[in-house]
Amino acid sequence: MTGSPTVDALVDEMALEAKVAQLGSVRIGAVLEDGAFSAERARELVPHGVGRVTRVGRESGLGPRDLAAAVADFQAFLRTETPHGIPAFVREESLCGYAGRRGATVPQAIGLASSWDPALVREVAGTVGEQLRAVGCRLTLSPVADLGVDPRWGRIEETFGEDPALAAAMTGSVVRGLADSGVDATLKHFVGHGRPAGGRNRARPTASLAAMRDADCVPFRAGVDAGAASVMAAYNTVDGVPCHANEALLTDLLRETWDFDGTVVSDGRGIEMLADDYGVTADRQTAGVRALSAGIDVEIPESECFGERLVAAVREGLVDESVVDRALRRHLRQKVRAGLFTADGPDPTTAADAFETDAVRSVTRRAARRSQVLLENDGLLPLSPDAAVAVVGPNADAPRNLLGNYSYAGAENADGGIDIVTPRAALAERVETVVHERGCGVRAGPDDDLDAAVSAARDADVVVACVGGQSGIHVERDSPGTAGEALDRAGLGLPGRQAALVERVAATGTPVVVVLVSGRPLAVPGVVERANATVAAWLPGQSGGAAIADVLLGADPGGRLPVSLPRSVGQLPIHYRQDAVSRGDYVFADGAPLFPFGHGESYADFRYGSLSVAPDSTATDGELTATVTVENTADRPGTEVVQLYARHRGGRRVTPERELVGFRRVDLDAGETATVTFTLPAAAFATAEKRRDAGLVVDPGAVTLGVGRSSADRQASASAELTGAPSHPRRRRPLADVTVERA
Amino acid sequence: MTGSPTVDALVDEMALEAKVAQLGSVRIGAVLEDGAFSAERARELVPHGVGRVTRVGRESGLGPRDLAAAVADFQAFLRTETPHGIPAFVREESLCGYAGRRGATVPQAIGLASSWDPALVREVAGTVGEQLRAVGCRLTLSPVADLGVDPRWGRIEETFGEDPALAAAMTGSVVRGLADSGVDATLKHFVGHGRPAGGRNRARPTASLAAMRDADCVPFRAGVDAGAASVMAAYNTVDGVPCHANEALLTDLLRETWDFDGTVVSDGRGIEMLADDYGVTADRQTAGVRALSAGIDVEIPESECFGERLVAAVREGLVDESVVDRALRRHLRQKVRAGLFTADGPDPTTAADAFETDAVRSVTRRAARRSQVLLENDGLLPLSPDAAVAVVGPNADAPRNLLGNYSYAGAENADGGIDIVTPRAALAERVETVVHERGCGVRAGPDDDLDAAVSAARDADVVVACVGGQSGIHVERDSPGTAGEALDRAGLGLPGRQAALVERVAATGTPVVVVLVSGRPLAVPGVVERANATVAAWLPGQSGGAAIADVLLGADPGGRLPVSLPRSVGQLPIHYRQDAVSRGDYVFADGAPLFPFGHGESYADFRYGSLSVAPDSTATDGELTATVTVENTADRPGTEVVQLYARHRGGRRVTPERELVGFRRVDLDAGETATVTFTLPAAAFATAEKRRDAGLVVDPGAVTLGVGRSSADRQASASAELTGAPSHPRRRRPLADVTVERA
Repeated sequence: MTGSPTVDALVDEMALEAKVAQLGSVRIGAVLEDGAFSAERARELVPHGVGRVTRVGRESGLGPRDLAAAVADFQAFLRTETPHGIPAFVREESLCGYAGRRGATVPQAIGLASSWDPALVREVAGTVGEQLRAVGCRLTLSPVADLGVDPRWGRIEETFGEDPALAAAMTGSVVRGLADSGVDATLKHFVGHGRPAGGRNRARPTASLAAMRDADCVPFRAGVDAGAASVMAAYNTVDGVPCHANEALLTDLLRETWDFDGTVVSDGRGIEMLADDYGVTADRQTAGVRALSAGIDVEIPESECFGERLVAAVREGLVDESVVDRALRRHLRQKVRAGLFTADGPDPTTAADAFETDAVRSVTRRAARRSQVLLENDGLLPLSPDAAVAVVGPNADAPRNLLGNYSYAGAENADGGIDIVTPRAALAERVETVVHERGCGVRAGPDDDLDAAVSAARDADVVVACVGGQSGIHVERDSPGTAGEALDRAGLGLPGRQAALVERVAATGTPVVVVLVSGRPLAVPGVVERANATVAAWLPGQSGGAAIADVLLGADPGGRLPVSLPRSVGQLPIHYRQDAVSRGDYVFADGAPLFPFGHGESYADFRYGSLSVAPDSTATDGELTATVTVENTADRPGTEVVQLYARHRGGRRVTPERELVGFRRVDLDAGETATVTFTLPAAAFATAEKRRDAGLVVDPGAVTLGVGRSSADRQASASAELTGAPSHPRRRRPLADVTVERA
Repeated sequence: MTGSPTVDALVDEMALEAKVAQLGSVRIGAVLEDGAFSAERARELVPHGVGRVTRVGRESGLGPRDLAAAVADFQAFLRTETPHGIPAFVREESLCGYAGRRGATVPQAIGLASSWDPALVREVAGTVGEQLRAVGCRLTLSPVADLGVDPRWGRIEETFGEDPALAAAMTGSVVRGLADSGVDATLKHFVGHGRPAGGRNRARPTASLAAMRDADCVPFRAGVDAGAASVMAAYNTVDGVPCHANEALLTDLLRETWDFDGTVVSDGRGIEMLADDYGVTADRQTAGVRALSAGIDVEIPESECFGERLVAAVREGLVDESVVDRALRRHLRQKVRAGLFTADGPDPTTAADAFETDAVRSVTRRAARRSQVLLENDGLLPLSPDAAVAVVGPNADAPRNLLGNYSYAGAENADGGIDIVTPRAALAERVETVVHERGCGVRAGPDDDLDAAVSAARDADVVVACVGGQSGIHVERDSPGTAGEALDRAGLGLPGRQAALVERVAATGTPVVVVLVSGRPLAVPGVVERANATVAAWLPGQSGGAAIADVLLGADPGGRLPVSLPRSVGQLPIHYRQDAVSRGDYVFADGAPLFPFGHGESYADFRYGSLSVAPDSTATDGELTATVTVENTADRPGTEVVQLYARHRGGRRVTPERELVGFRRVDLDAGETATVTFTLPAAAFATAEKRRDAGLVVDPGAVTLGVGRSSADRQASASAELTGAPSHPRRRRPLADVTVERA
């Protein structure tokens, strides 16, 4: 073990092959033999060292102890047998928990966002980080900072929803939580992956970079400001240029305007696409040169366009070695900062200790509980433990279907080696009588038996129908999911016979609770209409069943929608941040969503006081303070999410009718009152000056503030003026600071 | 009558009130009394003169003779009783013909585009222009140069479809055709109205100005180059700034880059929206100042934000009088160029001669025939005149439903005073036995009687089902349309019980021809599946019924789709100009459209030879020649539309997989062969250099050319190289020149 070298000194010493090796990756599978590290294979594959080792958990299929051993051996090989002894970044995915065998499958991101609880999300990320670190991963490809604005897109479950400010808060929380455990975050996918045209994965985004600077870029900036060490380029184009070749994006905006000094990594095979799919370069070698020049520092999952092709390109004069050195310095600097040169490798003897502990189960269950959204409830909920419950639907007893697409089980369609309690099992533990009839699959299938479910419903006091999707990624040829990467949909209804199942059990007259176990926001007005209560449980992870039972039996979930739920796919885009003119009804349909962004019911009731704002006017670089009281008027404790929305008028650009500028999740005892104070900098109203890349501006104008229970609700409002000359803040401040005082 | 004055001399002489009056408008209704011009009202309303007189046909409700008299009197009043005696531009809409009583309702624009016949469209526009001129209109608010890329949008029928090059050709044809009759065109709506988010009228476009410069702006540029005297600003924002306040659009791009020196007119009440809806100005006065400063020269339909408010704004120092003068000079220059100062007013005694002539009927019928698209035909068509035909469907015998939204009848829901032959009537004239049962309305209604239609179908040899929509504009409170302005839809199926009607008549076993009488492209895979033949007749206008009968009885329509027809609304955007990565299938659905852009069947068959391209390589400012032979191999004459598509690889930006770069409609006798030669300038591949407003660039790279029968078909292909340094053409050349030689 050496101490951390000086990056410049290292770069000066390194041969071209060794330099380029640092910009590339190797799959763990390529250096394993019989589940253990093979030095022989490594000598052949990575004689000059390697930048990153990829897919260690997912591809190895190894449990924590064996994986940690393989990783430790690999790092020892690199330290001793490659030039300069540079350790690799070892990485795995962790979108809904460490994506290896026995990983904590925490709620998928869209569920975490629904908690509106950044501190909880940081804790969850910290737990995930401990597991990553235990197997030797000091880097992970998480969080997804993309806005999720198109529910057709299969990956929307990986996002923190449609709102820049909420997503920014959550992105920052994940970056900090991973850092708490010594793991580097990767913000992905920069930028625009979350608003693909037609909801088609990798399709061009439906907005320009200039427009995205006021929206999609906000969570990325927040992640950079929170200390994210790495950013991943998106597959899609921005302004007609693939992100992997987009200097305006990767260099001008990210590095020059935002002062990011970490590494930019390709998405898997994203550089090859420049030649193979986009046709902007003639071959893979020039694709590598173009990507490197634009600002890509590291290629994954292997060294295809960098590697030997890049070595040759430098020797042929297609690109100057200094461009290689630029990327190399960034990557080495990240390794130094992460302590790779000085840290011990993972310890196989203790690696398993981070998994399947009570602490893990506790945080995953709490997170799953707090991420559920009670969409509507006519009083049927909470259920009595004495009730006779018929549990139906394809997601009532399917452990796999509680997990997100990048979980080990979700990605590999394999046993993840963890203990997953399903909603059926959790209810059976705590409710007097539980009968289970699946009724139908997620997709229509030969085993569908709606009659059996109807019969069970008829004999029950209440039906719990767990319906939704199955999340996976496109590799699952045998059991294709209905959501996840490359699993986009042109419709947003329940797949298969599930809508008919709900219709038929409801027709029995037995009250029905619908639990939507789905990472994709669905458009199910008919299902909601037939249900007495509807809960969006998202993809709640390994403790999801227990958490669903908690909520059905009386725990106030407190979740709020991080996306607008449409009435139909034809309403898209339905996200709430529209200007006043861009709203509007249709000939045969309402223009409004079925449930608006920010919506969620509680088992308690809340009363708001008036909203006071001070001062009446402030400079464009000043700040406003908004205060409101919230009282729990029910005879039971409950959770409210106090939401502050604003509109700024009179600026150079049209603003949305409402934008979230502050929020706080507050647990209130029966009768308790809290005073919530938002301190909102005028920089919250900063907008990109389109004509220049760098500039932000806050124009003078009128500001209307409204506090409400959703983006479509207003409990109280007040106004103020921003006066004087426009100001030019260095950064947008998307959210107010919030303090809570209890009476 | 004076001669044309010098604009500068006039401006020097004019008082501020008279200047501002020229920038405003008056509705004809305000100066009429009992159907005749009232000098008394005019003295009160327009004492300083007026720029434009609006809505003369639609609002007056007068026939040609009376309207011409009123217009002549009004102009005489302006010449004699207002300062400087400046005549007004008198205008009416003419999207599908002069929109006044007795106007020629020619096929709505989307139908004209389907003809792929620019010469025909010029002739149609000339006919419309003669009628406009006959009633004194020297200016019209036509054509719509917007690309129509979202079929949810109610106004898509007014567009020439989704393709920039096809729309550019048609836009140029209308401008020239109107000019042939001495009428100034107005290109509208600049820019982005045709790609509104969610299909919601006036919503922000789903692309930036930079992106639209390569697409939506192309037809506008073509219209400007064809000599359009006026451009109308769009209601929507572009890059977050309302078009009515968008200096980057109206001044930097339109005037400085494109050298446009005509007038920019507001859309109706578009300036007020800056204050009332968008909130970018505090009140209507500052809205007027901001619009004028950005480049709006004329306000319609009245003088609300200009007028007295603008006079006061100048006096209060809110805007310099020189800014008023800039707009005034443009407007006066247009009046001089149009000859308003020297021309005679309209002649009431001859005005009616331009209407309802055999020539008008001939051109409208020919246009309607050539605009129909035979989507599919299993051999049922053409029908025999001896057949017993059951004609069903709400659009079989509803004259009003053959017309577009801005026709007099469509807009006012009133009798247009013209003779309209419906499909039922036309078939009844020419087919042995015709039975008519409506079956149902466009919307579901109490008079729906599917059983009657089924019964008629059962007794017939063939069913002709005329289904679709009703086009109107939002003023029609009593009989709301299903398409037209502000009549957007979230679904794209047939409204009401029409799909059930088709299903039920088809279930009788009697062969069914479906005729889609709809300006909106519908997503009707189930209907097409059930039909033996399907014809898209669009909104064919006053001679539409006769033209539909022509086609059903054997005239090869020759129309080709100017839009992609989706399978479902969830596929949007479905237009064909996508890059290779932005395509892709859905979990439960195909990604491809039901019928691709450019598709249309013929009653004949065609064989293509190979495509030869010369030279193999040319400079980026050079040109390519592509030649192909097409043979009619059938034993009957037929019409083919030869379509040339291209892809350019290796440039700085990603290009669509295919782009239309040339086309020619060719009528071929049985056995006849034509050699079609396309001369394609490299400037067809010019793309906006995003970072600068003015620049276009042609990058070197590989060009693949394919000739086919639609955007999804390739009969023959060939390649060439563009070599050397990038070139910087002054303008894009969207289409090849084409010559045809017959063997």
